[in-house]
Amino acid sequence: MSHNTFGHLFRVTTWGESHGPALGCVIDGCPPGLSLDAPFIQQFLDKRRPGTSRFVTQRQEADEVKILSGVFEDDRTDGPVTTGTPISLMIENTDQRSKDYREIRDRYRPGHADYAYDQKYGVRDYRGGGRSSARETAARVAAGAVARRVLGEDILLRGAVVQIGPHMIDPKNWDWAETQNNPFWCPDAKMAAQWETYLDSVRKSGSSTGAIVEVHASGVPAGWGAPVYGKLDAELAGAMMSINAAKGVEIGAGFAAASMSGEENADEMRAGNDAPRFLANNNGGVAGGISTGQDIVVRIAIKPTSSILNEVKSITRDGEEVDVRTIGRHDPCVGIRAVPVAEAMLACVLADAKLRHRGQTGH
Amino acid sequence: MSHNTFGHLFRVTTWGESHGPALGCVIDGCPPGLSLDAPFIQQFLDKRRPGTSRFVTQRQEADEVKILSGVFEDDRTDGPVTTGTPISLMIENTDQRSKDYREIRDRYRPGHADYAYDQKYGVRDYRGGGRSSARETAARVAAGAVARRVLGEDILLRGAVVQIGPHMIDPKNWDWAETQNNPFWCPDAKMAAQWETYLDSVRKSGSSTGAIVEVHASGVPAGWGAPVYGKLDAELAGAMMSINAAKGVEIGAGFAAASMSGEENADEMRAGNDAPRFLANNNGGVAGGISTGQDIVVRIAIKPTSSILNEVKSITRDGEEVDVRTIGRHDPCVGIRAVPVAEAMLACVLADAKLRHRGQTGH
Amino acid sequence: MSHNTFGHLFRVTTWGESHGPALGCVIDGCPPGLSLDAPFIQQFLDKRRPGTSRFVTQRQEADEVKILSGVFEDDRTDGPVTTGTPISLMIENTDQRSKDYREIRDRYRPGHADYAYDQKYGVRDYRGGGRSSARETAARVAAGAVARRVLGEDILLRGAVVQIGPHMIDPKNWDWAETQNNPFWCPDAKMAAQWETYLDSVRKSGSSTGAIVEVHASGVPAGWGAPVYGKLDAELAGAMMSINAAKGVEIGAGFAAASMSGEENADEMRAGNDAPRFLANNNGGVAGGISTGQDIVVRIAIKPTSSILNEVKSITRDGEEVDVRTIGRHDPCVGIRAVPVAEAMLACVLADAKLRHRGQTGH
Amino acid sequence: MSHNTFGHLFRVTTWGESHGPALGCVIDGCPPGLSLDAPFIQQFLDKRRPGTSRFVTQRQEADEVKILSGVFEDDRTDGPVTTGTPISLMIENTDQRSKDYREIRDRYRPGHADYAYDQKYGVRDYRGGGRSSARETAARVAAGAVARRVLGEDILLRGAVVQIGPHMIDPKNWDWAETQNNPFWCPDAKMAAQWETYLDSVRKSGSSTGAIVEVHASGVPAGWGAPVYGKLDAELAGAMMSINAAKGVEIGAGFAAASMSGEENADEMRAGNDAPRFLANNNGGVAGGISTGQDIVVRIAIKPTSSILNEVKSITRDGEEVDVRTIGRHDPCVGIRAVPVAEAMLACVLADAKLRHRGQTGH
Repeated sequence: MSHNTFGHLFRVTTWGESHGPALGCVIDGCPPGLSLDAPFIQQFLDKRRPGTSRFVTQRQEADEVKILSGVFEDDRTDGPVTTGTPISLMIENTDQRSKDYREIRDRYRPGHADYAYDQKYGVRDYRGGGRSSARETAARVAAGAVARRVLGEDILLRGAVVQIGPHMIDPKNWDWAETQNNPFWCPDAKMAAQWETYLDSVRKSGSSTGAIVEVHASGVPAGWGAPVYGKLDAELAGAMMSINAAKGVEIGAGFAAASMSGEENADEMRAGNDAPRFLANNNGGVAGGISTGQDIVVRIAIKPTSSILNEVKSITRDGEEVDVRTIGRHDPCVGIRAVPVAEAMLACVLADAKLRHRGQTGH
Repeated sequence: MSHNTFGHLFRVTTWGESHGPALGCVIDGCPPGLSLDAPFIQQFLDKRRPGTSRFVTQRQEADEVKILSGVFEDDRTDGPVTTGTPISLMIENTDQRSKDYREIRDRYRPGHADYAYDQKYGVRDYRGGGRSSARETAARVAAGAVARRVLGEDILLRGAVVQIGPHMIDPKNWDWAETQNNPFWCPDAKMAAQWETYLDSVRKSGSSTGAIVEVHASGVPAGWGAPVYGKLDAELAGAMMSINAAKGVEIGAGFAAASMSGEENADEMRAGNDAPRFLANNNGGVAGGISTGQDIVVRIAIKPTSSILNEVKSITRDGEEVDVRTIGRHDPCVGIRAVPVAEAMLACVLADAKLRHRGQTGH
Repeated sequence: MSHNTFGHLFRVTTWGESHGPALGCVIDGCPPGLSLDAPFIQQFLDKRRPGTSRFVTQRQEADEVKILSGVFEDDRTDGPVTTGTPISLMIENTDQRSKDYREIRDRYRPGHADYAYDQKYGVRDYRGGGRSSARETAARVAAGAVARRVLGEDILLRGAVVQIGPHMIDPKNWDWAETQNNPFWCPDAKMAAQWETYLDSVRKSGSSTGAIVEVHASGVPAGWGAPVYGKLDAELAGAMMSINAAKGVEIGAGFAAASMSGEENADEMRAGNDAPRFLANNNGGVAGGISTGQDIVVRIAIKPTSSILNEVKSITRDGEEVDVRTIGRHDPCVGIRAVPVAEAMLACVLADAKLRHRGQTGH
Repeated sequence: MSHNTFGHLFRVTTWGESHGPALGCVIDGCPPGLSLDAPFIQQFLDKRRPGTSRFVTQRQEADEVKILSGVFEDDRTDGPVTTGTPISLMIENTDQRSKDYREIRDRYRPGHADYAYDQKYGVRDYRGGGRSSARETAARVAAGAVARRVLGEDILLRGAVVQIGPHMIDPKNWDWAETQNNPFWCPDAKMAAQWETYLDSVRKSGSSTGAIVEVHASGVPAGWGAPVYGKLDAELAGAMMSINAAKGVEIGAGFAAASMSGEENADEMRAGNDAPRFLANNNGGVAGGISTGQDIVVRIAIKPTSSILNEVKSITRDGEEVDVRTIGRHDPCVGIRAVPVAEAMLACVLADAKLRHRGQTGH
């Protein structure tokens, strides 16, 4: 994992600042012959696009993706396919408000990367967060769409928000279809209604709140991943923690496993048809770093947006104490828009694992 | 992160099976001129060595480390120093009981890597878990000792167990000195006593239990780490999740941040002497993927040992249903011995971040 | 070295086909605070631009570079500087003649990548060579300009053509200034005149010819590079052999060293002022894989362009035997335009070596 | 290519100094299920072992390899197989003469890495060259043996010396069988006799001489390798130039291509049975960075050993001028023992290319 590159055989390099001319990514190592055009990628970008409900930022970005290289249509009638060469994707920035960022320039916003970037680089593009802006995740979502082509139709990736602020869904109510019926990707219809009220109050109070996102992959065959540092869960943890505002990652039972006994935590096995049947999925589909054929289950803790209207104590670049409030168009709960991003990272990790597994073992 | 290699500039490659002749690691990229001899490394290995109390495995391994390359003493009187070339460390396996492993060979132990390895490789060294054995972590601890030399005396790394089974310490009782007074690295003297009773009952019942480990790094300067996939917290998450039995990682407030408001979660800043003063450390010392100068704080969930005396349902390699119990010398709570391992991974991540930061910025 | 990525700390990823909408590169790991704007990069692109004399391809490409990310001007008056985040550079393709490429599509041009790409990928963008086109080197030249900023003013990079076809320069006539006075980067004025006649005849006969390029770096301090696989000469060899049409690389005396005795080949040393004085430079500035402070000297053999008007025997995709001639705008001696490309690769290798050296040793 | 690691999916990390306790390598990413035992590896080590004739160093090293991990025999009767986990190989150093190295310690031997290492690291194990010793290549040869298992029986790797000093073989006399009949791997019986006389005179005069080594791979399918920086010839060039004393690399016609016309250099194609028939092999089996199915042909220039009995001018660490002669057991022509090393590097590059190709394309 290099600074702005993710993956080993399926490698994604992202670039771009919030208020530069564009952002994008280069995908190296994508297999040839996969069907790929801009509309396919666009549908995933549309899922994370700002401005889709009052619960996400009101910034208006079309987030229109262009494919600059790596596909070729020739005279086939079924659309362009990948050629095995680097796929360059670009999204132009269109809604860059010309507001005065001078205030942010000289004042560190607590919880943001402002101070840390200045300490590291001595210079930063402070407009809209620059490189640390959540806009960077658009490039990840675009890459994730390509990764889905690598995985094929047999692997199903899905995501949901399972907690907003202190309000957690009831797992007994889980219905994947429900995630399409509300603006929160909430699988629990009852909780979705409660979140609507809660988030309205958060938004009106000028504050923000955290969330927990859960993503699943079904249909992953046993054998992907590797021992030690290449463990599939280690790759997933690194990938998910690299999402903006992520501060925790769990696989399967995760932190709850700490309270379990060995018997409770064991995923007992029974004979199945093509593959064993597991009586539980506490290991979240990964044992010893290698997939077991069970569903891959990952949960990610997303902290509340640091950009809030309410004042917090801070300092200026010159070390003077100030109170900072961040006026602008922000997500009251950035966890919502993290769902398609987490799905994309899951897709990228699995696509990479598939290619590495095939490379080493031929399967 | 390659399969068995960790890090970018400070690179650790580990090798070895539980019941092979030896295990070890090669460290490439260590700066030259650092004082390093076997006794320095040995003290860290002794912290994770089996057989030190009745709460850890009774396997008797000296875990004596040999330095095979990368240091040179010449005629200096202050001992050998690193030369900048690869440091090869080896630990011979001495207590490989000649018991019959045939039972494990043909039966998959639930929660173990047995089934997944077989699905991936079609062949595995099943003796004592082979490559997936916790013995592999001895090599990590040895590498971590070298990483500490890279970090120098100004950076203090410490670890503790904060929960065993359902029994969590009281943070108000936290006393680092206390971790040296009990066999659990417990910073809460009162809880240590309770754990003793609890673990004795777990052990006698033939079961096992999970734990939560917490590691801290103090003295890390602001500016280490990088944006996006090279985020310091992403590197930490990948590193920690690669530890055997780890199923969750949190940085700072972690999952608790999901329930917080933006104001609560913000680490407010005040003017300090050399550096800002932070009024909280919810971000665990990392903002935007870059260190802030606050303490780095990481928590890791360790699942209960899957090797238990009690029977669990499973299948054989041929798909027949069986009941499996694992007789042998096992840790009732593998989380205890995970403390020096987590410290070592923290050391390795930070050493790598230091060198990369210096490479890119010259600081 | 990944497929389309070059370097370790100073990492360049290139993308783009000859007849796609654009080509470009992403540079990750560039230090912050370096002055960088488009005109600075453009001057190097102008050196390799087609259409500058009758001895290079007559394709008309402005090759205008755009900086899409990684620099920030703020309100400084001395222009934009790098921010330490990825630098995305893009060059749009403008002169894509709509000629019928069907002939190339179905017939393999001997010496070209046509057959090999088809065997690997099963699909390829055959228009103008697609990814294997020499247009890809524009992205390298752009990256090389950034690398020069990393190296600073004290390191001087220069290149020349020293042989075209069987006509080799006389080293006694070497004058760097002369390389600016003829369209061949020829350091020997007398030979330049001869090449003019020779290349005119090659061009008129519908053929092409090979060349040898030599690049020098002066001012490189002793200590860059590393032992074994990270040898500076190994990195240089890999970099230079990755240039289109390159089939040989020499460092210093190179193949001539095979005929030398140990005494002849030794670069004897005498005491100097700040550094030793070497009485020869047969090792081309690198000993044991590490720079010595001498000039880095690399020679690259460039094969004759495979695109020629004269017919050569080949086969179609269906295996039928055909005669192929390549009509179009081609370089009679692609070695000429390889000079700025080889300089760029030299710059990239050295920039990477500088950052890695600084990372490991702090110098 | 990291400092002491080679390869991407088939990764070799070497370690060890000439006069330390041992040297070795760790191979990560080797596919599972391949037959591998120590005697198989040993036969290749025996080919490069010192002391086999009067034309190579008289150092007496058994170079006995031990497999420390990554293979498992279980109860199969056909010997151990690889498990897919890291293979650790170790060779103990046995003939470390306790001679006084103080002279080398304080005096830089021209042509050696002495000065460069000191400038880089400030410290070095000077005994016998330390890490820069040709002993390091034993680890490469061991790794190459494993790579051959990855390649299988259908790929034939062979090497020869084609020039010693100014004496070049006659390609018309080439007979592979002949390479087994003389101590030079010379494929030209007539030239072998001449070299014997020549090398005796070189040896007696206290000098040394250079050589050119040529290695071939037959049976490599079309499609291995990749465009741009991952070109198969770029990987080969980097690999070969990383061999001690290598100063030049050619693929196919190499530098001779510079003098050719496009028609001469084109490898014309005719219809074949399973694959096209090429009428020449000027591109050395690689076009556009991808294998064509032709033989891979690589030549490497090896400079004369810098360790000679005759005096050369040099300086001490303190900058005083001295004359240096190197007494000891040295190869008069280190190119001879480079043959098995170059074969090993060829094997490693191809094994890696095979796995990467399989990973990306599934073939």
